[in-house]
Amino acid sequence: MFRLKHLPVDTLREHVIMIHEQAVRSGNLGFNPLDRVRVSGSDPATGKSREITGVLNFCRDALVGPEEVGLSDEAFHDFGLPEGTLVSASLAVAPHSVDLVRDKLAGKRLDRTGFTAILADVAARRYSRVELAMFVLACALKRLDLAELVDYTHAMIDTGDQLKFEADIVADKHCIGGIPGNRTTMIVVPILASLGLTIPKTSSRAITSPAGTADTMGVLADVSLSADRIHQVVNRTGACIAWGGALELAPADDVLITVERPMELDTEAQMVASILAKKKTVSATHVLIDIPVGPSAKVRTYAAADQLASLFRAVAAHLDLHLEVALTDARAPVGRGIGPRLEALDVLSVLRCDADAPQDLREKSLYLASRIIEMSGRVLPGAGYREVRRTLDCGAAMAKFSEIVDAQGPRDLPPEAPYRYTVTAPADGRIRNVDCWEIARVAKRAGAPANVAAGVKMLKSVGDILSKGEPLFEIHACSTEQLETARAYAQEHPGIITMGF
Amino acid sequence: MFRLKHLPVDTLREHVIMIHEQAVRSGNLGFNPLDRVRVSGSDPATGKSREITGVLNFCRDALVGPEEVGLSDEAFHDFGLPEGTLVSASLAVAPHSVDLVRDKLAGKRLDRTGFTAILADVAARRYSRVELAMFVLACALKRLDLAELVDYTHAMIDTGDQLKFEADIVADKHCIGGIPGNRTTMIVVPILASLGLTIPKTSSRAITSPAGTADTMGVLADVSLSADRIHQVVNRTGACIAWGGALELAPADDVLITVERPMELDTEAQMVASILAKKKTVSATHVLIDIPVGPSAKVRTYAAADQLASLFRAVAAHLDLHLEVALTDARAPVGRGIGPRLEALDVLSVLRCDADAPQDLREKSLYLASRIIEMSGRVLPGAGYREVRRTLDCGAAMAKFSEIVDAQGPRDLPPEAPYRYTVTAPADGRIRNVDCWEIARVAKRAGAPANVAAGVKMLKSVGDILSKGEPLFEIHACSTEQLETARAYAQEHPGIITMGF
Repeated sequence: MFRLKHLPVDTLREHVIMIHEQAVRSGNLGFNPLDRVRVSGSDPATGKSREITGVLNFCRDALVGPEEVGLSDEAFHDFGLPEGTLVSASLAVAPHSVDLVRDKLAGKRLDRTGFTAILADVAARRYSRVELAMFVLACALKRLDLAELVDYTHAMIDTGDQLKFEADIVADKHCIGGIPGNRTTMIVVPILASLGLTIPKTSSRAITSPAGTADTMGVLADVSLSADRIHQVVNRTGACIAWGGALELAPADDVLITVERPMELDTEAQMVASILAKKKTVSATHVLIDIPVGPSAKVRTYAAADQLASLFRAVAAHLDLHLEVALTDARAPVGRGIGPRLEALDVLSVLRCDADAPQDLREKSLYLASRIIEMSGRVLPGAGYREVRRTLDCGAAMAKFSEIVDAQGPRDLPPEAPYRYTVTAPADGRIRNVDCWEIARVAKRAGAPANVAAGVKMLKSVGDILSKGEPLFEIHACSTEQLETARAYAQEHPGIITMGF
Repeated sequence: MFRLKHLPVDTLREHVIMIHEQAVRSGNLGFNPLDRVRVSGSDPATGKSREITGVLNFCRDALVGPEEVGLSDEAFHDFGLPEGTLVSASLAVAPHSVDLVRDKLAGKRLDRTGFTAILADVAARRYSRVELAMFVLACALKRLDLAELVDYTHAMIDTGDQLKFEADIVADKHCIGGIPGNRTTMIVVPILASLGLTIPKTSSRAITSPAGTADTMGVLADVSLSADRIHQVVNRTGACIAWGGALELAPADDVLITVERPMELDTEAQMVASILAKKKTVSATHVLIDIPVGPSAKVRTYAAADQLASLFRAVAAHLDLHLEVALTDARAPVGRGIGPRLEALDVLSVLRCDADAPQDLREKSLYLASRIIEMSGRVLPGAGYREVRRTLDCGAAMAKFSEIVDAQGPRDLPPEAPYRYTVTAPADGRIRNVDCWEIARVAKRAGAPANVAAGVKMLKSVGDILSKGEPLFEIHACSTEQLETARAYAQEHPGIITMGF
């Protein structure tokens, strides 16, 4: 028996259990580091027994004594017993569902029962990081057929909580990402809400990008809203722009992201299932999917985009979801800023209809909003664009955005990043395109999204003609080291911006 | 700047860096948990600068203070600066070679330069656990063609140290594994050494099995030998049976195993490269590869075995290695014991020519030894079997084995496991086969190989006829919990032993 100890360590959704190596040896417990261990005990108050499994680390001294077992932050919280409780520890085996992952790797199909078993174990933190990677790569490399994908999506929905809204039509939009600065959501949502649509938007934080919509919105307002708070905000304003991860809408997805992020790998099936499951769990009825297509976007050809669009439509049809797809042109980032604070400034500029607001962000947002308002049947086909432009230009969208920010809880704009570096044109010429993937990497190296003020500010756009030495873009960073890392990366990758005539 | 602190935590070949969350916030360092972090400082004695990268964990209190940065055991050791040294910490990016892994996942080929870059980073602990999993699965699922496999093997060899021996012929053998109890090495090596061959055998510990040869030999003798000690032992006895992991023969492989083990996944290309690289690094000239074939072995059909054998031969041809393959029949475990101590008893029984020694282990060892002695040219083709049997039966092999054990450093046989459970026949009938994979899982759940005395002892063999209720096999465990886990697994999987008429 061991005494329970809380180790205040954040291991990002992996349960870590720490045992003193002396206890392992003398007790002949037969553990090795990285083994899976089960800790069991009973609640001193209620007498109810509880158990938790996690990945084992050994320690020698200081952290836990030979008579103690240490649980990392989340594991301790999930276990729910007080420090000092007497608990036992034993070697645990992998959950049965890991065998299903192995079967999938070997080429077998998975069904809804299988996916539900896997995702329930994933959500309960019963998978080690390596097993999570196995599952993600099994789905990525062994492909899911349509029936599997529908089953996977259903399993995602089954594993999470659900938000319900009164409205007959609940609108939603989603961009598959990959285009830096592409913050249309924060413009489309207030436009549609001011036209009377219910649009409770939950967004993600950055997975592989320098900013997700939740990161950018988080610069201006609280985005970590509970389900109750979302209902309050939506009842009051007709909309919200919240962080989906604060809810338990897709708890398995939140865990899978911890391995997808370091892989810098987005996988098609995982993406379709994850997006559509989240739409269903917020009770969306009408959804527009934005697929940017460009030489450095996630989707590089219109043929590939059509294929992905068909996949979205096919799965949506099985989920009773009214879905349309917009294929949008992406030869460069949208807007000027890349990184949460810089992107938030772009959004405000468009909503305020500033004369120098980035026109590409404005036009794309109007296009997407017009598609959704037409889908909803509130305006006649073809009349959407005029309607949404009017809403933006008359200030109604800005007023609605302020309402949403106030309802969520406004935040003070953080200060500008203190360190800057200007990258200049290597030669005379016209900008032909900007590599979205590489410019995102510069912004990430500068510290985005963790440093909200860090990132890249584009000073020129595709089509601009400039002379050698003229400023192309600025790197913003919060430390000299990050500035230097980003600068060096930009220098080593001159192909970030293609110039020609 | 932070003060360096040593965290005495064993994280199994992953560098973990611990920073106080308050330091992260106030310093606006822009870190997230699981980010890769670089710690830099200079040696107070020599002034030389040093740096190390690792995976970031946050903590709140107790473990490290806001002014400290904590390094896990191996990271602290590799960094090499004393506690209290002033160091800086910054966000680090993934090594460039991770892009090559991503390219491979996307279907591109890798070459020797690429593999060498990857394996050097892997060996230096620059890969996170998730990136290691990516690499292993990329090679497994995207396949390596022959040229890639040869390049990968060369890269493995380039990354490690090399052992050199005087002899013209350096013999070696290797079983691809998957057959519990198959401890032929400990019999073949002394037979061949007593016939005058040089055979410096390095073996692995269990990856996915209840015991590797190094685990079993470790019951009787020290197997953690340095390169110098191996030379001493081989000079004195002509042979050794050592743990390869104690050397730096294939340091990348030792790291890759930390993700392969929890995956319980052996991959063909990884296996061929890893085996042949290790043979080259011990300067082997003549190698026999044992591929067991059976319904529950790693290789299930002779067609698959032939294909694998061709792969071994093709790669060996590019490495200037004389290689033969033995396809051996495997419808059941070899010998009676499964688990380090129980297998060691089988080996001793065969070497002593006990009347009740397991005949399958004896015959298989004699066959493999005869193939190698014939390959070496020391006897005429066809004369090998008689020669090696004579060597075993006259006690010369046993004497040689004792010599090797004495040279490596003998160990006292550990006591028997205190807990037993006997599994009995569910019906009358004849044993048709034993599922090697499932019986291994029973032994692992009983605690093998970490508990050396734990495992399974087969009481009957394929072909035996028995009545319902007669003992089939015994589970040995060091705790009641492990006994119970293994018993439950055996009960839930009645297909472990197939009976019929």
